[in-house]
Amino acid sequence: MQTPELNWRVVLVRPRNPLNIGAAARAMANFGLQELMVVAPYEPVWQEVRSAVGAENVVRSARAVERLEDAIGDANLVVGTTAGTRRNLDRDLLPLTEFPAWLRARTSASRLRQAALLFGSEKTGLSSEAMSFCHVLVRIPTAPQCPSMNLGQAVAVCCYELARAGMVSTPPGTVKLRHSDAVNLQALEHALARLVNVLDEVGYLKPKSRNAQILKLRRLLLDLELTNYDVRVLGGILAQTQWKLNNP
Amino acid sequence: MQTPELNWRVVLVRPRNPLNIGAAARAMANFGLQELMVVAPYEPVWQEVRSAVGAENVVRSARAVERLEDAIGDANLVVGTTAGTRRNLDRDLLPLTEFPAWLRARTSASRLRQAALLFGSEKTGLSSEAMSFCHVLVRIPTAPQCPSMNLGQAVAVCCYELARAGMVSTPPGTVKLRHSDAVNLQALEHALARLVNVLDEVGYLKPKSRNAQILKLRRLLLDLELTNYDVRVLGGILAQTQWKLNNP
Repeated sequence: MQTPELNWRVVLVRPRNPLNIGAAARAMANFGLQELMVVAPYEPVWQEVRSAVGAENVVRSARAVERLEDAIGDANLVVGTTAGTRRNLDRDLLPLTEFPAWLRARTSASRLRQAALLFGSEKTGLSSEAMSFCHVLVRIPTAPQCPSMNLGQAVAVCCYELARAGMVSTPPGTVKLRHSDAVNLQALEHALARLVNVLDEVGYLKPKSRNAQILKLRRLLLDLELTNYDVRVLGGILAQTQWKLNNP
Repeated sequence: MQTPELNWRVVLVRPRNPLNIGAAARAMANFGLQELMVVAPYEPVWQEVRSAVGAENVVRSARAVERLEDAIGDANLVVGTTAGTRRNLDRDLLPLTEFPAWLRARTSASRLRQAALLFGSEKTGLSSEAMSFCHVLVRIPTAPQCPSMNLGQAVAVCCYELARAGMVSTPPGTVKLRHSDAVNLQALEHALARLVNVLDEVGYLKPKSRNAQILKLRRLLLDLELTNYDVRVLGGILAQTQWKLNNP
């Protein structure tokens, strides 16, 4: 199978240290990645980011957004990174070294265009909520005695592996999504919101476990590897159901 | 061929930023490397190195030495790293991704025990003199628009690749060199000094080009992949020659 070349967007979620944002930008530029987004940075942090040497373009075009969903946006592949030290992790972690083979084996591989690679904050990593948006969680295979990497270095190692496997499309340019492409997360979130609405009305979601149920539904939808077309059909069905529930 | 597991020593030559020494130590700990040596650090830099999280052992056992030769010491494989931007580079650069295959193919691979991985200073990289000690120069395959990496990130990527290829021996412990092992650089430098002495006496080395000739001889000796035994024999021949020259 061919290795798909993707347009990669690096997303830093709530980073605390401006040096790490600059370091991430530089590593991206080193390996030909160009799109950087930062979710809810501490305001002073964001102001302090200096153009790292050679990474001026990455820093200049970087954007800060409030919500993770806005950073994921039109991505149709979302990859989370984790040191894997958190206890309640209920998902398999893929070693970074095996990620290229995983992606090649994925049925939707050829339908992917835009990918997002998420990194959590230096202290806490990605939250369970953030992980629920991820198709896959990868772990850099670090030593058990010292598993947690510096953020800038983790970004460098991941970008190196993506470039090494020939997965970085250059030049990026605009990505046009087609019907047969894997659905992007924005469209999937719209469908999920509709689904949740219906499930609320029919009483499927219970107040106590509602949030956990939604995270599970999101994962279920992600695992289906739906196309844009699939999701449009699903949306139509849900809209019709909603209408009927409101007009019995 | 089997991938040789080596005891790796990371050598930072004249680093300027204490953050980079701490970052290098952390990346090493992340990937199971333990031996850090720093050549001629600016004194205040060295004092400021804090134990990076999880890298306390690496930092505690790190040593500062004055000369590169002292840091290379008993290594019988010396690997230099470079961004490859320097003009007068008269040697082939090996992409880091191809380094594991290069090492497996080397006839002396199974006779290697202790390796040194050299990183130059943030501003200037490794000098020609430092490069002359290297069996091979590797380059992290970065984008032409932004080739030069941050020092701490370069160390992280190299350590990741070594661990990825299964080339890092754990636990390190003491390395005992055998006769049939590849010669270490200390012994080779002794032989080279003897050779230079003889060549001076016979008038082979010309004042103008003496230094350049010595760098070439060092490279020639490195390329021969000599064992400890070979170098002992060579040393004997040179000592005898020297004696005869002094006692005609």
